[in-house]
Amino acid sequence: MYDYNFIENKLVEFLRKETRRIGIQKAVIGLSGGIDSAVSAFLTVKALGNENVLSVLMPYKTSSKESVTDAQLVVDALNIRSKTIEITTMVDSFIAKINDEQMSSVRKGNIMARVRMITLYDQSAFEKAIVVGTGNRTEILLGYTTLFGDSACAINPLGCLFKTQVFELAKHLGVPESIILKKPTADLWAGQTDEGEMGLTYAEVDKYLYLKFDENKSKDELMKLGYSIEYINKVDGMIEKNRFKSLPPVVPEL
Amino acid sequence: MYDYNFIENKLVEFLRKETRRIGIQKAVIGLSGGIDSAVSAFLTVKALGNENVLSVLMPYKTSSKESVTDAQLVVDALNIRSKTIEITTMVDSFIAKINDEQMSSVRKGNIMARVRMITLYDQSAFEKAIVVGTGNRTEILLGYTTLFGDSACAINPLGCLFKTQVFELAKHLGVPESIILKKPTADLWAGQTDEGEMGLTYAEVDKYLYLKFDENKSKDELMKLGYSIEYINKVDGMIEKNRFKSLPPVVPEL
Repeated sequence: MYDYNFIENKLVEFLRKETRRIGIQKAVIGLSGGIDSAVSAFLTVKALGNENVLSVLMPYKTSSKESVTDAQLVVDALNIRSKTIEITTMVDSFIAKINDEQMSSVRKGNIMARVRMITLYDQSAFEKAIVVGTGNRTEILLGYTTLFGDSACAINPLGCLFKTQVFELAKHLGVPESIILKKPTADLWAGQTDEGEMGLTYAEVDKYLYLKFDENKSKDELMKLGYSIEYINKVDGMIEKNRFKSLPPVVPEL
Repeated sequence: MYDYNFIENKLVEFLRKETRRIGIQKAVIGLSGGIDSAVSAFLTVKALGNENVLSVLMPYKTSSKESVTDAQLVVDALNIRSKTIEITTMVDSFIAKINDEQMSSVRKGNIMARVRMITLYDQSAFEKAIVVGTGNRTEILLGYTTLFGDSACAINPLGCLFKTQVFELAKHLGVPESIILKKPTADLWAGQTDEGEMGLTYAEVDKYLYLKFDENKSKDELMKLGYSIEYINKVDGMIEKNRFKSLPPVVPEL
């Protein structure tokens, strides 16, 4: 078990220190209605004060109503400013222009995530504020993010927490219960859930990632601990395939 | 003087090696009509063959006609596939939605650069190709780029070349003369030139950056070499202020 009081203090201190270092103590955060952005907002308000946090709600026409009402619960609980900027016309202008009837849900989802990035970064320029990120360690390691989309931020207090730890921290912080109880989803299309799309449960994969990265267990040791070779190959394959998302562009040396 | 034959070979070899390592030997490149994207396209065609390079032209309604005709000269010279995807409706959908009459040229320029990123990355997903970058070392060091916009790419053959070196390499590669002769511009608004906007000439700043980074000259030494304290503070200030654009998001450690 982790000490979530310790973790909370550590992350709040991190946000205070880094925003001081950057010289900007105002933040913008995109609130999706999900648990990650809720926890990120709770921490940022503790670090900078509610008057210095602007939340931006960016629903698409297919976003579930629940996403918007849950995001609003966070706004109300924290008493922070919020703007709602619906992204439908922007996203649909891409889809209309590219005009590819075969466009996959993944391509559409990437457009949505990146349109949100543009919207959030534009608000951060307007507010002279920094974009605080909402990506947890599980999704960063697995690459379950859109490059230059939801992963785009200046500082990210959740980057050191597995998804299951984000849930525990959410309970500790008093994040509204409906957000804690629902299934994690990127809400990019109807019925999407993270676990369904990845074919992994967070409980199991977080334990695996912990053993692999924090306990440095080898493949053999992981198999002895009960992970099948198929499971190991699947997860390690995701890590390997998506590693580029965490790295800067490759540049030659002369 | 540099040996541009050597540089050409080195960069072509870099592109071959890195695309093999990534496992994708098809490339998409956004062609602006400017010298950087032209040189990047010439190198990529030498590395992967003209049949494996898709160029994408993404004019905005205010883009100069010259930009489009110069981009077309590159397409014709290299005999590569090209698509023109005008970004006007996408960019204008952001401007209309955000509906801020005070929106600055810089904010609009960032939206344009990021809309191009979305368009290019969507084409790369459709083509199962990688995005080859076009950012030179001068603009990367000075931060004269849009984060998650024109700087977004998987590999960038020009990242090691100062702008003045890109010009020399362009002559060596036979890039069409009209592209070499015109003033560098991001073409984000009418009359924009890089040098005018930055208040710096590439000839002078490239020399300064070379002395500072490659010869490790101190501030005192740079002043003895004739750079004024105002010049040094201005350039070093740009470098410092924009350093974050080359770094991943800051994440805490537990």
